[in-house]
Parts: sequence; C-alpha cells; structure tokens
Amino acid sequence: MNGFVLRGAVCYNASPTTFDAREDAYVVCHDGVSAGVFDEIPPDYADLPLVDCAGKLICPGLVDLHVHAPQYTFRGTGADLELLDWLNTYTFPEEAKYADLSYAHQAYGYFVEDLARSATTRAAIFGTLHVPATMLLMDKLEATGLKTFVGKVNMNRNSPDYLADGTAADSLAATRAWLDGVEARGYSNTRPIITPRFTPSCDDELMSGLGRLAHERGLNVQSHLSENLSEIAWVKELCPWSSCYGQTYARFGLLGDEGPAGGKAIMAHCNYCSDEEVRLLQAHGTYIAHCPQSNTLISSGMAPIRRYLDLGMNVGLGTDVAGGASLNMFRAVSDAVAVSKLRWRCVDQGLPPLSIQEAFWLATCGGGSFFGRVGSLVAGYEFDALVLDDSGIRTPRHLDAAQRLERFCHLSSEGGRIAHKFVAGCQLF
Amino acid sequence: MNGFVLRGAVCYNASPTTFDAREDAYVVCHDGVSAGVFDEIPPDYADLPLVDCAGKLICPGLVDLHVHAPQYTFRGTGADLELLDWLNTYTFPEEAKYADLSYAHQAYGYFVEDLARSATTRAAIFGTLHVPATMLLMDKLEATGLKTFVGKVNMNRNSPDYLADGTAADSLAATRAWLDGVEARGYSNTRPIITPRFTPSCDDELMSGLGRLAHERGLNVQSHLSENLSEIAWVKELCPWSSCYGQTYARFGLLGDEGPAGGKAIMAHCNYCSDEEVRLLQAHGTYIAHCPQSNTLISSGMAPIRRYLDLGMNVGLGTDVAGGASLNMFRAVSDAVAVSKLRWRCVDQGLPPLSIQEAFWLATCGGGSFFGRVGSLVAGYEFDALVLDDSGIRTPRHLDAAQRLERFCHLSSEGGRIAHKFVAGCQLF
Repeated sequence: MNGFVLRGAVCYNASPTTFDAREDAYVVCHDGVSAGVFDEIPPDYADLPLVDCAGKLICPGLVDLHVHAPQYTFRGTGADLELLDWLNTYTFPEEAKYADLSYAHQAYGYFVEDLARSATTRAAIFGTLHVPATMLLMDKLEATGLKTFVGKVNMNRNSPDYLADGTAADSLAATRAWLDGVEARGYSNTRPIITPRFTPSCDDELMSGLGRLAHERGLNVQSHLSENLSEIAWVKELCPWSSCYGQTYARFGLLGDEGPAGGKAIMAHCNYCSDEEVRLLQAHGTYIAHCPQSNTLISSGMAPIRRYLDLGMNVGLGTDVAGGASLNMFRAVSDAVAVSKLRWRCVDQGLPPLSIQEAFWLATCGGGSFFGRVGSLVAGYEFDALVLDDSGIRTPRHLDAAQRLERFCHLSSEGGRIAHKFVAGCQLF
Repeated sequence: MNGFVLRGAVCYNASPTTFDAREDAYVVCHDGVSAGVFDEIPPDYADLPLVDCAGKLICPGLVDLHVHAPQYTFRGTGADLELLDWLNTYTFPEEAKYADLSYAHQAYGYFVEDLARSATTRAAIFGTLHVPATMLLMDKLEATGLKTFVGKVNMNRNSPDYLADGTAADSLAATRAWLDGVEARGYSNTRPIITPRFTPSCDDELMSGLGRLAHERGLNVQSHLSENLSEIAWVKELCPWSSCYGQTYARFGLLGDEGPAGGKAIMAHCNYCSDEEVRLLQAHGTYIAHCPQSNTLISSGMAPIRRYLDLGMNVGLGTDVAGGASLNMFRAVSDAVAVSKLRWRCVDQGLPPLSIQEAFWLATCGGGSFFGRVGSLVAGYEFDALVLDDSGIRTPRHLDAAQRLERFCHLSSEGGRIAHKFVAGCQLF
C-alpha cells in the first residue's frame, strides 16, 4: 500500500460552516488521496509509515486562484495609482521585459522558488503574452510539483505597441502554437488556461476566437471582471451592445459552463457586479477570485463576498500579485476577513463579516474545487496538506487548534513557518 | 569625539511632504544625536568609525504610539467580537492573569524580547492595573535600551471584580505607590505615564485625581477616544454632562497641554471625532494614535487621518496589540495606507488616501515628537535608526531607495530583515 500517515493538530473545512479542529489526530494519505482524519490510526493503515508532527498544525494546502507571475518583480511598489493608470505606468512596461528570455529566467526563477516555499499548493497564474517566456514559466512550475493552471495572456487592443499581440488572428495563432507546445511537453502538474487579459484589452473577434478555442480543446478560462469603477465605465463604452461587463465574456462562451463538455472560468475581483451580472455568473458556475489586498492597495473597493457565499456561488481567494504585494495565501485569508469587517462597518451592515473559518474555506475548498476534489482533508480529496510550525509565535497561553490556525492566518510571516508541504500526496519539502 | 558613521541607502522624512531618499549616503551619529545625512563624510567627522552598510537601507526607528503589553499573549486570536464584548470576553480575563508575577514574567519576557527585535525604537505602552507586574514590565523594557512610556492602568467602574482598582482613592493610592517605585528605580530609558483605561472604566473622581496627579508630577497621559460607536454611545450615557467624549478627559486635564509646565496626552483611535472633539484635541495639542489593523480586526472603523493631517494635528501610528495582531510597525505603515485608500474609495472621496511617505512620516516624526526630537535623521534629532536588509525580497529589477522603503513597509516580514537597530545612538543589535 502506497501512502503515509501524518500526526498532529488538524484543522480543515468540510463546508464553509463545518470546520473540524482536532488537537491530536491522524491524517492518512493513500495513493495521493486523503483516506480521512482519525483519532486513532485505522487498522487498514497501521502499516503505513508515520510522519509524527506532534505539536505542529496540519491543514489543507491553500489555493491561489489569481496571481500574475511576471508582476512579482515589482510587488510592494507602485501602489499609488488606480487600475488603469497602474497598468499603463507600471505593469505593461514590466511585462514587456519578458520578451527577453534571460530576464524571464531570472524573474520567473524567483517567483517559482518563492511560490514553492509558500503556503500555496495550487494556483491559477497569468503569464505575459510571450509564448517562449510562458513556456519557460510552465517548465519551472512543472519541476516544483505544484499543480497549476498557467495562461499566455491575450491582448490586442488598447495595449501599448511594445506589448500587444497584433491582430486577433495573430493572437489566436500564437495561442494555438503555445497550446501545441504545451501538449508536446507532456506536463503532469501544469495545465494551460485560456487567458484574455480583460475586455478592454481584447476585441470581440479575439474574444470570440478564444471562446471557440476553449471549447474545442476543453480548456478552462481566466480573466478579470468588474474590478474598478473606471474600468467598468470603459467596458460599457467599448461594448455598447453589452448590458453588463459579464456579458462581454458570456457572449463568447468565456464565463465557463458547468456541463460535462465545458470548461470552467475564473473571474478575478467582481467588486461591483450588478444583479444581472450576478445571475450570469450563477448561471455559468463562474469562479470568483476574491483578492482583498489588491483591491485595497490599488483602491479598487471591497467585494461583497458574503452575498456571493449566501447565493452559493463559487468563490476562492487570490493574492493578485502585484496588485497585491504578498504571495502569502495566509495573508489573503486574514485580509479577506479584515476587508469584510470594514465593508460591514462602513458600507453595508446587511452583509455580516466573514469568519476566519469561512475565509479559510475560501482559500482551500472554495478555490480548490476548480482543481477537482481539492481543499479538504475529508476522505476522497487529493492530499494537499501543510504542516505548520507555530512555535515561533510565542505565548504562555494554551491555545486550541482552531485558535492556532486563526493566529497563523494573521501572523504566518511573523513567527510562523511552513515545515512541510504535500501536493497530491507528494512531499515538496 | 563620541559617535560613528553609517553608510547605506538612506530614507527619512523631514516633514510629512518632504521625503529624502539617497542611494548612497552617510548618517553621522554624534553623542547620541544625528549630525545629519551627507553625500560625503564631512571632515569634522572623518575620524569617527564607519559602519559600512552599503547595499542596505537606513531609516529612522519607528514609534509605536499605542500598544498593550499584556495582550500580546492573545494576538491574532479572538477577533470575532467588537470592542466592548472583546474587552469582557478576551481582554479582561487575560489581563487578570498578571496578578501572578510568574505569568507576567513569562508573558512580558516574550513581549519585550519581540519588541526589542522589532522595528520599534520607542513605544507608549499600556500594562495592567497591577503595580508589581507593571514594575516587572518596566524592568524588562529598561534592560533593552528601548525608550518607552509605560502605564499602570487605572480602572474602577464597569470592570469585573477580578480586574478592578477598588475606589477612586484606592486606584490613586496604587498609582502613587507605583510612581514612587518607578522613581526609586532610577530608570534611564523607561518613563511612567498616567493611563486611565478609558472613560467607561474610570469614574469622574478617579479621572479628576489622575488629572491632578499628572499635573503635580509633570507626567504625560495615554488613553482611548472615540474608537467604537457603541463605546461612544455608552460614554454619553455615563457622562450626561459631556457634550463630546473628548470632554470627559479635557474636563480633568487629561488631554494634554502644550504649555511649558504641562504634559502631553496620547488618545488612541479617534475614529469618530465630532467637530467639537477635533477642536478640543487641537486646542490641547493631543496626540492621536492611529491603529489601522486594530480598527479593522475588531471592526471599529476607519479614522479620517487625512483630515487630522490637513488640520496640522499631532498624529502617530500604533499597533494596538492585541486589537491589532502584529507588533510590526512597518505593517502599521502599510495598513495606514491601505485603510486610507478604502476609506477614500468607499466612504469619503473628499479625503485623499495617504501616500506611503506620509504614513512613514506618521510612524517616525508623527509619533516621535511625543518623545522629543525623534523620528528623523535631520541634524539635531536623537539618533534612532534601523538598518534594513531587503536582499531576501528578490527581484531582477533595480529599485531606488524610495521604492525599496515602500516595498519594505509592505513586505518587511516576507523576506525583509532588520540588520541593526540604534536608539539614541546606542546599538541594540
């Protein structure tokens, strides 16, 4: 029998409102999948090797549902502008540098090494429009054992000359070439995802072609939606035929389709969705990637995540580096709670704040289901797990496992340490 | 000549809007005071030893204008309640433990060690009501070389039996005994500060006595003001004679007095000051300690700091552990910017967000002037400085000194490291 048993204090969600915390328990990994959490090792698994992490915390791996790999180079700087000016001033000039593979090699090297060491076990990642640099990024990610979706970005309008795909046909041809290259690589951890940057960057012909391509090849989609008020107004100008921003994706089959043949879609942000847009996202089963630090640092706003949860929508968390400064998904959990509190206090007392367990659910199961049965330690889930050492966050108090996880979300980088990380049953460190 | 010269990239504020960043400069410390920042070492100082920190960043030490030492034990937990319930449920039971000196020894040991390693060079600190534990805290702080104000907390109403000072006379007698004990210790770094917990915890007789005591002994004052809406409503009930919360301190001489004989006062939070209250704080030169993470985690609100800055008021930053989870003042700088953006976006577009340099000014000069000429590297300021190693925040980009400082504020605990720390010219590490 192939597997192992982890022992420690265990915390995980079975649902947004079902949080299980055990002081001393065993998590069994069998063929890359969780066989469940137990107070005693079941006789069937008694022969598996025991990895004794007594005193440490064990939790599911975290899922970063939205991050821009090329922007990692300027994380934590340039947060003095809002989205559209921020793109033109900081982001596009930086992304253009990835035409140079030696720059990409160094920059993606740092990103991938830091991601591999982070709390993230799965991620949906934007590259740039450059095919060779995006392949290089995928090669590096593949080697880590992380499970990721990676997208070559498409952009063919309102883009600077130095960072544009050309015509829609050019952009589609480059995308097909990239997809063929990916297929030839035969990756086992790294999958391509169709990635129109956002409606202002892609004309209708390109959107239409990308929708067809996604359906032809059974691929998922990622993009941005209703992040910033000026962006939303601009989309209305660019697509006068649309009744809401979401329609500019839905019309071309880019919001996902939960049916057996269709792919899924992630839309980052969704800070200002109209009722119509919410219905559209519900109808398509679209995943919302909530990125609280980015929405704060580039002054986008505060997304009504409680509303989306109450409606049973698919919601996960993202770091959105470099709109967000931190690649740390524990920080995203903390920030999701924080922003929900300020929104409740200052904007809408009808939407109660998120609890830490709900935010943790978003970062695990919420985004995890985009990858399959991922995000929990319940039997049958792929075995993504973190072993957390919180002994550096010193206190004379006795804290229970749930309190320790709460504290780790707020203070992971101030005394906390990730001791071990497993993805689909493989130990990364 | 007693002193030394530091070399590195130097960043500091001379005023909220005057930020000086130099790529390679020399900061001269002479008799514990800055002799200024220079591009070349001036001949007068050529014989001083050079501490070459080329490649690192040098900036002023940060000032934590509001932190509760006993609450450090539960930082990062228990943020599911608002202020008044949070006090009764988590805070008061924890503070009661400091009646036990062995608990205080361990808990304050962790707090003081972590504070000494942090970016903070000066702090205004709440203890508990217990005199022996507060003396123990002061002994430990004195040994670090940090410059601090520390307060034995006064509370004699609406307080649980297990954590109350008794009558006003009892509370004042304990305070006098504590002050006498402090005087006998002959500390050089650690000063006492009069610390009524907040109006709901102190009756008028106690407030009156504390005001007289502060004036008699020339002491400064620290407390809380207009943090939370329920708190403000409660103060109105408790003090029907007051026209605003601030008056409940001002009436007893507890808002500070900038005159030569009078002390200064710090009021934490000031999230909801009325126009009258603002005028009162202006008239008294009261220091506002803005604590953005605490105001977020216990859902208090977002303080209009831009307004206070425009009015030329005294404003600094605080961590407010354990309302805030983090003792890291760089995090407070980042959070002050973040909250100001959300406030601007979602509450009041009339008050523009804070820039990172303005927030850095708050954390250095803003709070520093409470301690004297502190918070800048301009000639004549006490030599509080940090040497920052940001080489762990990897990027292929060349960043200038100002960008590196901005990045350090957002990412200090994710790859950043404080290499050296100086307080009033003494090197702590």
